[in-house]
Amino acid sequence: MIFRQLFEPDSSTYTYLLADETSGQCVLIDPVLDTLERDLRVLHDLGLTLSYTLETHMHADHLSAGKKLREFTGCKIAVPALDNLACADIGIEEGTPFNIGTLTLHPLFTPGHTSTHHAYLFDNGMQKVLFSGDALLIEACGRTDFQSGDAQTLYRSIQDKFFSLPDETLVYPAHDYEGRQITTIRQEKNRNPRLGKGKTEAEFVAIMNSLNLPYPRKIDFAVPGNQLCGQCPDNVPEQYRGPCDIIQMPDFLISKPLGDQG
Amino acid sequence: MIFRQLFEPDSSTYTYLLADETSGQCVLIDPVLDTLERDLRVLHDLGLTLSYTLETHMHADHLSAGKKLREFTGCKIAVPALDNLACADIGIEEGTPFNIGTLTLHPLFTPGHTSTHHAYLFDNGMQKVLFSGDALLIEACGRTDFQSGDAQTLYRSIQDKFFSLPDETLVYPAHDYEGRQITTIRQEKNRNPRLGKGKTEAEFVAIMNSLNLPYPRKIDFAVPGNQLCGQCPDNVPEQYRGPCDIIQMPDFLISKPLGDQG
Repeated sequence: MIFRQLFEPDSSTYTYLLADETSGQCVLIDPVLDTLERDLRVLHDLGLTLSYTLETHMHADHLSAGKKLREFTGCKIAVPALDNLACADIGIEEGTPFNIGTLTLHPLFTPGHTSTHHAYLFDNGMQKVLFSGDALLIEACGRTDFQSGDAQTLYRSIQDKFFSLPDETLVYPAHDYEGRQITTIRQEKNRNPRLGKGKTEAEFVAIMNSLNLPYPRKIDFAVPGNQLCGQCPDNVPEQYRGPCDIIQMPDFLISKPLGDQG
Repeated sequence: MIFRQLFEPDSSTYTYLLADETSGQCVLIDPVLDTLERDLRVLHDLGLTLSYTLETHMHADHLSAGKKLREFTGCKIAVPALDNLACADIGIEEGTPFNIGTLTLHPLFTPGHTSTHHAYLFDNGMQKVLFSGDALLIEACGRTDFQSGDAQTLYRSIQDKFFSLPDETLVYPAHDYEGRQITTIRQEKNRNPRLGKGKTEAEFVAIMNSLNLPYPRKIDFAVPGNQLCGQCPDNVPEQYRGPCDIIQMPDFLISKPLGDQG
């Protein structure tokens, strides 16, 4: 199989590419509109067919590339079924494995950062691999003060769904703000300052309630845009409009006529 | 396959278990005498046959469990061929893959921490996996002031043999002193304060030369003991002798007579 961890620096988002080499089918987890062209180039360079975009949750910090990727590649858009998005093609639910060729992702309903957040568990034969979305980050976790977020709920999601996984489970988060890329379940149990080292639910809630984070700078256009699977709404401010203006398929994706190949 | 990352707290050493589930064969990379019984129990509980112990290098901070594991399980002891150890069964060389059942490790000659250090590269089908020994640690590296260590040589080993690997390569080090467990090649390129972020060889050498580390507390008995594959020499101080006194196979490994099984 092919695996790539791709980074979008403005929102510090990790997009994950998983491909089944046998069929050439692949999925992009949490693709970002800002890196649409980079992602299309990776797919093109690796000769892959994008079967799906797959969201962990309704993002408030970036616009999804889902809609544009579907427009340019014909892929399907998969989102948590609980999001009930008219624009999506597939609704994801815990208990129903999600297949990309021969690869299988197991959705885990893990609310708390948002009320419909899902993580995705994969087994590579050596370790389990958790795409933890915004629920669990490296020595951190997603904020719980917007989008029906709830600290108690997030604590239970992480304890029950994540910390019950094998210690060696690799954790790939949807963000890191300090250039880190990976952690493990045991490392987070040992080191996560918010809910590792046996922190109680009450301690976690107190920590989350005292974070005093700034208002999310993109939330006012990202959430309505992502409710349309990544369509740019009218209220995107000028400094963030760049990615909205990509309306044409990049040249390298447009097939050349046969006579022009060599 | 089965994979375990096992920790020995006194020397903060990670021992790695890799097992081919098809054949039940397995290897322990860098087993520590202090955790001999724990490792035997893991093998027993998982129903595995220890085919090999495999060292990344001649350790100065702990005694290897190689000799005792061979005594109790009949495994073979594999060490870098350059160590030229009469007590070992197999000499490892870069360019000659090392097989454990259907699993294959690729030795990488990576001197600098010691002059004969080898790392082991594995491909799990999703990512390459590097057992980096003491050459590259998480945001650190092995010291270069003993055992024919050389900072320039270590810089070249890491740059040439490790930083040329794919960004997503998982790095499992032989030690971590802060409870971390895993990193990636890209994370170390980005964050390693000694040789990441484009640090030059001269900058690295200057950093290594200014570390002012204490004299290794076990080196005077660990190195001569490890030259005998983990035999306890006479000069092991009283406070470290405990692991040397395990001379009998633990009870749980001694087969019970048939009439005593139920």
